[in-house]
Amino acid sequence: GDAAAEAAVRARQDTLTKPPGSLGRLEDLAAWLARWQGRAMPRLDRVEIVVFAGNHGVVAQGVSSFPAEVTAQMVGNFAAGGAAINQLARVAGAGLRVVPVEVARPTGDFTVGTAMSADEFRAAVAVGSDAVAPGIDLLCLGEMGIGNTTVAAALAAALFGGGGAAWAGRGTGLDQAGVGRKAAVIDRGLARHEAVLADPLAAAAALGGRELAAILGAVIAAREQGVPVLLDGFVCTAAAAPLAVLAQGGLDHALVAHVSAEAGHRRLVAALGQAALLDLGMRLGEGSGAALAVPVLRAAVACHSGMASFAEAGVSDGAG
Amino acid sequence: GDAAAEAAVRARQDTLTKPPGSLGRLEDLAAWLARWQGRAMPRLDRVEIVVFAGNHGVVAQGVSSFPAEVTAQMVGNFAAGGAAINQLARVAGAGLRVVPVEVARPTGDFTVGTAMSADEFRAAVAVGSDAVAPGIDLLCLGEMGIGNTTVAAALAAALFGGGGAAWAGRGTGLDQAGVGRKAAVIDRGLARHEAVLADPLAAAAALGGRELAAILGAVIAAREQGVPVLLDGFVCTAAAAPLAVLAQGGLDHALVAHVSAEAGHRRLVAALGQAALLDLGMRLGEGSGAALAVPVLRAAVACHSGMASFAEAGVSDGAG
Repeated sequence: GDAAAEAAVRARQDTLTKPPGSLGRLEDLAAWLARWQGRAMPRLDRVEIVVFAGNHGVVAQGVSSFPAEVTAQMVGNFAAGGAAINQLARVAGAGLRVVPVEVARPTGDFTVGTAMSADEFRAAVAVGSDAVAPGIDLLCLGEMGIGNTTVAAALAAALFGGGGAAWAGRGTGLDQAGVGRKAAVIDRGLARHEAVLADPLAAAAALGGRELAAILGAVIAAREQGVPVLLDGFVCTAAAAPLAVLAQGGLDHALVAHVSAEAGHRRLVAALGQAALLDLGMRLGEGSGAALAVPVLRAAVACHSGMASFAEAGVSDGAG
Repeated sequence: GDAAAEAAVRARQDTLTKPPGSLGRLEDLAAWLARWQGRAMPRLDRVEIVVFAGNHGVVAQGVSSFPAEVTAQMVGNFAAGGAAINQLARVAGAGLRVVPVEVARPTGDFTVGTAMSADEFRAAVAVGSDAVAPGIDLLCLGEMGIGNTTVAAALAAALFGGGGAAWAGRGTGLDQAGVGRKAAVIDRGLARHEAVLADPLAAAAALGGRELAAILGAVIAAREQGVPVLLDGFVCTAAAAPLAVLAQGGLDHALVAHVSAEAGHRRLVAALGQAALLDLGMRLGEGSGAALAVPVLRAAVACHSGMASFAEAGVSDGAG
């Protein structure tokens, strides 16, 4: 991160026509964008939402209330412009790209084997890295994949402990008994792969899925290219979380945009030491929470770059 | 409110390509807009932010860290486009109107007399009613007035009890000792006007201020004209709060957009039985929190009107 750019933002904030600190997180967001864009005047001219889609062998264990073919059907719906994220991208003034990651080839069922081999994992990570377009100012990440809250819960448990019951949620609409079965499936996966769980990347390969690995790759590539990241809900955050475990500050360029109603997300956000920008009871995925937070960042940038200083406006400041 | 319009939104929501309820508050917001616009398909083509400004005799008691002339200076800054709300209105795609309410004639100091006579109060309320433009789809309200968090705290205490210490906050930047002095000033005002505090409108006249009375008038007029309202922070919410006390449901067409870092606001929002849409640590006023929430409402409307149904998109729903 560019500490000088962040400091320049902080210094300018205190000259603007408002009581010091009164724009709250908007001031922090301007500083955060400056730090990770490496620019004293952050900008959001090119914002892109990338939604990765994948399928999961573990759906064979009955962990979702929707059938696996919905993943491909929703990819079609994204292309046709009919999904929530299409509307939200337009409101956000953001480009939208959907990247299916071998949707026709589900990962292995993690209760009976590994989700991905090391090579398959690397390939999915590379899909994500390659999806970060050069020169964008902000990357919003999202996902679609029937069964992937089970995968995300397993990965979160591997990274932060707690077992299936701590991380399993209703997903697209399980009842309480279904959540209990899902927790048991997760625990079977954790037991099966116990030997590799201490290695965050090995855990991500063993548990899956391809779209989670692609998100991981995109977050890494964004850091290298000076692009701040907005993470969406539970699955997206879990996918990026290995970076926080691997290195102190490894996720500092990525903010959780919205805390999902999916049970494990609040716990995961806390484990990462973050506070989500929004809390609106959504639990859709698709990048919906990230898209919804884009106008908040636009507001931060607009205030920072557009407001007059006390001196320019002839307003008495509170210091005297 | 139009219950049929709200029901039509709820029915349509369940056909759209998402798990039922997974858009959380966005679904509720679409239903709320429909109810108060009286339209099954809510729209946000014309959104207007109105900022009322006023000055307060009680600043003579040393309750603000900024001098009273800043109110007029900030009105100038609004006109020149240099304030936070100018930038936020642009991001929100909203019109912005600033209405000074006799800024050159401060209200009376409520610790030594009434802030406004009954006639002055009625005149200020009428300024607010008249400021609601015909045909708008959403009204965002804001205020500017050095000293007005003291007035808002006094009014909140009059309406909901608790005394000055429960409602006084740092305003534009008081230290802890300053907050204690402010609480004492509020308590003197409450004692002085004790005889009228059980009457919400008489309390609003006795404590002030003109911009708060104008907000009250605007919220009343919006209800009559079928215009939903976004309230901003502590001052704006306190200004509208008499309507909730006067009649059950009297504020149902007005949502608190952002819960302020100003101490009393969280308490006031809870007293009204509301949950603010945003919580971003802001404490600026000017309508800033309301403006910031407009894109959330746009997102709600965009999803509701733009998404495909399961049948249209050929996506399997989760019922089977």
